[in-house]
Amino acid sequence: MYEKIFRDPVLNEVRVTDPVILALIGTREFQRLRRIKQLGVASMVFHGAEHSRFSHSLGVYELARRFERYLSEFHATKTAGDGGWDPTERQVLLIAALLHDIGHGPYSHTFEHIFKTDHEAYTRKIILSSETEVNQVLRQVAPSLPHRVAQVIEKTYPNPQVVQLISSQIDADRMDYLLRDAYYSGATYGEYDITRIINAMQPYPGGIAFAEKGMQAIEDYIVSRYQMYTQVYFHPVSRGIEVLLQRALARAKALFTAGALTEVGSPVLQKLFQVPSTLTLKDYIDLDDVVLVAAFSRWQYHADPILADLSQRFLNRQLLTSVIVQPETQALVPKLQALIAAAGFDPAHYTGLNNSFDLPYNDDDPNDYRMRTQIELMRADHSRYLLSEGSPLVTALMGRKFGDTRFFFPREILEEPSVQTEFQQYIAHDKLVKVDLEQAND
Amino acid sequence: MYEKIFRDPVLNEVRVTDPVILALIGTREFQRLRRIKQLGVASMVFHGAEHSRFSHSLGVYELARRFERYLSEFHATKTAGDGGWDPTERQVLLIAALLHDIGHGPYSHTFEHIFKTDHEAYTRKIILSSETEVNQVLRQVAPSLPHRVAQVIEKTYPNPQVVQLISSQIDADRMDYLLRDAYYSGATYGEYDITRIINAMQPYPGGIAFAEKGMQAIEDYIVSRYQMYTQVYFHPVSRGIEVLLQRALARAKALFTAGALTEVGSPVLQKLFQVPSTLTLKDYIDLDDVVLVAAFSRWQYHADPILADLSQRFLNRQLLTSVIVQPETQALVPKLQALIAAAGFDPAHYTGLNNSFDLPYNDDDPNDYRMRTQIELMRADHSRYLLSEGSPLVTALMGRKFGDTRFFFPREILEEPSVQTEFQQYIAHDKLVKVDLEQAND
Amino acid sequence: MYEKIFRDPVLNEVRVTDPVILALIGTREFQRLRRIKQLGVASMVFHGAEHSRFSHSLGVYELARRFERYLSEFHATKTAGDGGWDPTERQVLLIAALLHDIGHGPYSHTFEHIFKTDHEAYTRKIILSSETEVNQVLRQVAPSLPHRVAQVIEKTYPNPQVVQLISSQIDADRMDYLLRDAYYSGATYGEYDITRIINAMQPYPGGIAFAEKGMQAIEDYIVSRYQMYTQVYFHPVSRGIEVLLQRALARAKALFTAGALTEVGSPVLQKLFQVPSTLTLKDYIDLDDVVLVAAFSRWQYHADPILADLSQRFLNRQLLTSVIVQPETQALVPKLQALIAAAGFDPAHYTGLNNSFDLPYNDDDPNDYRMRTQIELMRADHSRYLLSEGSPLVTALMGRKFGDTRFFFPREILEEPSVQTEFQQYIAHDKLVKVDLEQAND
Amino acid sequence: MYEKIFRDPVLNEVRVTDPVILALIGTREFQRLRRIKQLGVASMVFHGAEHSRFSHSLGVYELARRFERYLSEFHATKTAGDGGWDPTERQVLLIAALLHDIGHGPYSHTFEHIFKTDHEAYTRKIILSSETEVNQVLRQVAPSLPHRVAQVIEKTYPNPQVVQLISSQIDADRMDYLLRDAYYSGATYGEYDITRIINAMQPYPGGIAFAEKGMQAIEDYIVSRYQMYTQVYFHPVSRGIEVLLQRALARAKALFTAGALTEVGSPVLQKLFQVPSTLTLKDYIDLDDVVLVAAFSRWQYHADPILADLSQRFLNRQLLTSVIVQPETQALVPKLQALIAAAGFDPAHYTGLNNSFDLPYNDDDPNDYRMRTQIELMRADHSRYLLSEGSPLVTALMGRKFGDTRFFFPREILEEPSVQTEFQQYIAHDKLVKVDLEQAND
Repeated sequence: MYEKIFRDPVLNEVRVTDPVILALIGTREFQRLRRIKQLGVASMVFHGAEHSRFSHSLGVYELARRFERYLSEFHATKTAGDGGWDPTERQVLLIAALLHDIGHGPYSHTFEHIFKTDHEAYTRKIILSSETEVNQVLRQVAPSLPHRVAQVIEKTYPNPQVVQLISSQIDADRMDYLLRDAYYSGATYGEYDITRIINAMQPYPGGIAFAEKGMQAIEDYIVSRYQMYTQVYFHPVSRGIEVLLQRALARAKALFTAGALTEVGSPVLQKLFQVPSTLTLKDYIDLDDVVLVAAFSRWQYHADPILADLSQRFLNRQLLTSVIVQPETQALVPKLQALIAAAGFDPAHYTGLNNSFDLPYNDDDPNDYRMRTQIELMRADHSRYLLSEGSPLVTALMGRKFGDTRFFFPREILEEPSVQTEFQQYIAHDKLVKVDLEQAND
Repeated sequence: MYEKIFRDPVLNEVRVTDPVILALIGTREFQRLRRIKQLGVASMVFHGAEHSRFSHSLGVYELARRFERYLSEFHATKTAGDGGWDPTERQVLLIAALLHDIGHGPYSHTFEHIFKTDHEAYTRKIILSSETEVNQVLRQVAPSLPHRVAQVIEKTYPNPQVVQLISSQIDADRMDYLLRDAYYSGATYGEYDITRIINAMQPYPGGIAFAEKGMQAIEDYIVSRYQMYTQVYFHPVSRGIEVLLQRALARAKALFTAGALTEVGSPVLQKLFQVPSTLTLKDYIDLDDVVLVAAFSRWQYHADPILADLSQRFLNRQLLTSVIVQPETQALVPKLQALIAAAGFDPAHYTGLNNSFDLPYNDDDPNDYRMRTQIELMRADHSRYLLSEGSPLVTALMGRKFGDTRFFFPREILEEPSVQTEFQQYIAHDKLVKVDLEQAND
Repeated sequence: MYEKIFRDPVLNEVRVTDPVILALIGTREFQRLRRIKQLGVASMVFHGAEHSRFSHSLGVYELARRFERYLSEFHATKTAGDGGWDPTERQVLLIAALLHDIGHGPYSHTFEHIFKTDHEAYTRKIILSSETEVNQVLRQVAPSLPHRVAQVIEKTYPNPQVVQLISSQIDADRMDYLLRDAYYSGATYGEYDITRIINAMQPYPGGIAFAEKGMQAIEDYIVSRYQMYTQVYFHPVSRGIEVLLQRALARAKALFTAGALTEVGSPVLQKLFQVPSTLTLKDYIDLDDVVLVAAFSRWQYHADPILADLSQRFLNRQLLTSVIVQPETQALVPKLQALIAAAGFDPAHYTGLNNSFDLPYNDDDPNDYRMRTQIELMRADHSRYLLSEGSPLVTALMGRKFGDTRFFFPREILEEPSVQTEFQQYIAHDKLVKVDLEQAND
Repeated sequence: MYEKIFRDPVLNEVRVTDPVILALIGTREFQRLRRIKQLGVASMVFHGAEHSRFSHSLGVYELARRFERYLSEFHATKTAGDGGWDPTERQVLLIAALLHDIGHGPYSHTFEHIFKTDHEAYTRKIILSSETEVNQVLRQVAPSLPHRVAQVIEKTYPNPQVVQLISSQIDADRMDYLLRDAYYSGATYGEYDITRIINAMQPYPGGIAFAEKGMQAIEDYIVSRYQMYTQVYFHPVSRGIEVLLQRALARAKALFTAGALTEVGSPVLQKLFQVPSTLTLKDYIDLDDVVLVAAFSRWQYHADPILADLSQRFLNRQLLTSVIVQPETQALVPKLQALIAAAGFDPAHYTGLNNSFDLPYNDDDPNDYRMRTQIELMRADHSRYLLSEGSPLVTALMGRKFGDTRFFFPREILEEPSVQTEFQQYIAHDKLVKVDLEQAND
């Protein structure tokens, strides 16, 4: 039996025996993922986390492969409708796992906000359009395969077990990124035991539940998720870099529109600034982190001092700092902005509000837990119940909203003699606070 | 006491208490290292190994800090000349550790070969030239500090202990990169115990020896080094990417000289192609992986079919394959090249010989072990002997030359009907072999 | 500087530089801890967990040493009453850490219940009585040292920081046993980061708080504690072995009193059966796991069939099984016992109720969390607040009572034809349930 | 499918689906292995290594299960004689793996030397004799099964692949004990990758070879073996405890023969002292570490001062120290013995020579590497060659004889004023050395 093994630091080995998978990995659309960082700007906060979406995509594939291997060996269907796993779903599952992120672009969240691109639509296009190498590989296997793969990723595939293994509260995607981001960031010490989670999988007609023996490993997974959100994905400094990136791109776009920025640096960016609708799929494939960073590298020497400064701040990590804004203190933000303006920074370009809920990490919306597939445990008698009923720890963590709203501004303000004193009166324990200014001014 | 902690996946924490170190990390010259991959093209073979020289440099600093902390606590000098560690060397040691790689450019080995740049000279300039932010930070501490730091890195610093901790057979640089490259590549399972190596350090007037209790940990380190060289640093596929990179850059340069390539994509590359001597230090700081990858991204659409093809091969990982060439079979290379030409690939652009000794990983020349500082063990009575005298394992590994010479060519040849049969007659067990052509042609 | 290093799989190295510590480790009272398993009967459920109280005691010492080293380096007191750490407390801290469990006997919980011994009293005696080697070593340092060490262990020592490092919600004792028991049992995958917890320590006049940067590591520790209790310390099978041990010892004692057991097997057990008050401290030092196991080894051949059977069950792991009893079903227990008697097992010897709250693991009473030292976080401005106020995860876990009450009985009942059917009517989902017997008998 | 999972710290999970395996684990002969330490006296040197032969035996079973699963899935035989793995060998393989050490007694090496017992013969008897529970379980499966299992363990089984997986240079036994002893002792940091070794297995008619991709993992295994021998198995302090144990047992036996020791403490020891030939298989099953330690516990109070002293030294770890003896200095041993006698210690009871070659760790004779099954690598074309031909590291380690001869004596001699000076003249760098006494006495 032919086998290609990729050494992977997180999962030890990624094993490929299906030549279709190997061909997909070799396509230019998939190779492009090497040039898109998995965590975007967070690699500037967690210096170890410089891994790409390429690594993550291989990891999701490998986990799906392990899931399927276990299900085929221990829970294969015997008679139609018995709720067992159907081994003929193997290929579509593994391909969907591999390609689920194929449409991602650079610094997705911020970039899409400014340029109105949609990585989910591009994932669909890359799979379905006959222009791509990915589509050609898939069509050679079966004309219907591109469509079926897209269905799995869009959660419209008829077999709910296949969908759930790729997209649910505990799926190959999340399981890989939590482990991988933890491994590379060094942020969490605790890990969770993939093998024990897999060995607890119990298919039934409506999806995949987990035997009770797996509960502890799933608890570890939930704790890991909680910690990665609070410690890494919502890290205030990362969010400050997002704000900076947004401001710089907006400034470049405005200058471009005004005719003050002519040479953007790459054809794809040129089109996006000019007439986004002319962007072809082929153009989009050329869009990666390198395109953006090369642009900033060029713009740091641009004549417009604001674009130049924002660009070099991004490159040289001269970051914005922040303070928590609560509903009752939101009205104070303009006062801060006035002080910032007085210190010489235009608030329109140098400040911003950022809500950590704005940062849905890989489609995971922390505001909306109830809409998602719940994790179910299965008793020895095959009856099922929600994980949250069995684990006080999970109850505590799953119903909770994380995150906060922060106001970002240049760190220099805190040391600028002219405004420093007044500015700092508004800040206590990392929060924006109301001050009795008369008293304060005494 | 002020302290800034960087979470690091390899060393857990990188701890900074000296504001000078923090200021150096914040300079644009140091931040630039984020955009230079530590392993260059090897990240295309080991997909997990996408880490930067920034991470590695922080790691070398952190190890030097741990060395120094141990030496100060347990082996501080008491009277002049007693061979103890002098704690006043702390700052120069830590800064030299942090900055030892500051002059590295993108894909150093290949790049320097084509463009005749010298990263060691740039390291020196970045530390000594008053133009750089690094130099400004250092001069503010003491006017002599830049010079002293440069001396440590150049091994001319008067205190041999300081030099040895940064540059020797077992120093902060190698100890970090072996661990870090192993961690990120997933290539070696075995690690070695930093703590036990540190706790065995024994300074004496001429350097640092190791107490015998540390021998096992040092053996692990030597084995790790052996395995990283054989498995990662000399990996044939990486070397094929080096060849490809070299051919593509050479082609671009030739086209540029011939006036067929006008827009190179970035000012720094433009100067390098044109009049390298006009390259300023400031230009060099703009040179990073992004500059090169952005150039290939552009060149893949160039009118010259060879440059376009070599560029897209580099981006999309359509690699060269290879065969071992031994002195007795070197004469056969032209025959292979003729077949390759017959198959439509110009050997000048699509083939190359590569000797793994050409790839001095961070200055480590495996041909020349005797020139380097040997590792010494120290007995309880303070007498010393060479590690190789105490460990048969080390003897086996340290005297040995690794590596081979390989001939690289496009993988397509192996499946090209017109030449395939004849070509493959020359290959057996991954080696180029003499064939009795008459017999073979029967 | 002299240093003795013990290799330790959990903490890597246990380092001793104080010859007093080394002398204490060499005493017969401390060496005896090698012959007392840390987890008692749980090693029969978790086969890997065969480690001794000797290992644990070295671990507690080592953690205390690391705590002290950090506190001395970063938070040493400068002026009296400033709340800093007083380095002159080092020796008493380390010794108390080492000796905190010195009085433990074999299978402490069950044994003490039957024989009315008290390991805390013995810890006190071993430290204070001039008969012991431990006391001799301590007195040679200072006549007051034994008294001071005993005070720390009994929490009456004047410096609350010293007490808290040994006995609190997060102390050297718990930190070692959670890590060690997890390491040896293989029960929990998640670990927590000792270094980050230590680096967050912030002494103040009333104790030790933790900087907020340590919160995540402390959360991991709390989760680890929760999981070890639910998965290991309260494991139903372990508790069944406790019941068996209790029944066997009670039977032996009854036979002894009745003159039917003359040769007990060891002098110390003989005295305990006869006139416990004659037990000397020297006798107690001879009491270890070996004494008990050797007795069972002998008793398995005793003429009394009940003692013989209970003994061989203990040795050969023929265990009791169990069912959860809730307040509303407690009244059903006699019905089960009647069925068990009908099947030929005397319920007085073969059944038992066991409440997991009966198993205070190392004095940790899960019923009574509020009585214990709370973990406090410290802000940058040195104000403090309870960990539970900062972490929803901790709130969920710390206020919760774990555990259940179980009725234990021989596994054979479940397969005994005469009673099996009726017996199993009382059991559903691992719980004792009320049955409508008339309906059930239809 | 029924499945029982044992949590194991080294292999994560030990999985049993065959009820015969579960029944064998439940036998009294197998449960007895819980009371026999895997490393014997070495647990007194490496305090963490208190694990039992029970744990190790489960581990060997689990590794054999993983080997078999891989071979069945990827290399099952298709036509007779094709060299593939025969899945019908599964059960005999797993049982032989589980039971390979079933006949071991306490502190095997020393004990067998004194009492002339033979653990291999007992392994055979326990499997073949109808008296044992093990045999009953096996016979119920098939009358021929006990014989077949014994053949595998004795290496006379017809299928060489089955034998090799249990007994060869790289087999389930060694692979488990190296990992397990390393895990528990904390002695080696480096581990090796079981999965990569398994995934390289390539059966052929004469045995099992390994694909070249597994070479690095096998190198790690060989290095691990080298380090465990030099650091743990041949540790001088362990060997000193062996000498002590031997002297104490010999003294007890002599006193018994002389009628000066009447109560030995347990029936099985009584028989061994009296008429060893009357020892039944049932008696032997009662023999475990507890029997021996309980005896020493008793003997430490015996009237004979030598037996009492040797016993308490063993219990309280008051050990012998040692010096290396070389052929050219062996003649000096009597001079040391004379000094020791002068200091009040009878050399017959307090000294001893010990050759590390006397300590065949689990039958592994380091003198005789060529007699054992060599490890073979297999090329892609299925040709094979010796591992040592492919790896300079293995060549260096496999041909080498480890070990030394040491003379053991009470540590007190080194501080005994009357002989100290003269004694120490004979020792330099841990070796016995010739001294020019005239010169020395000047």
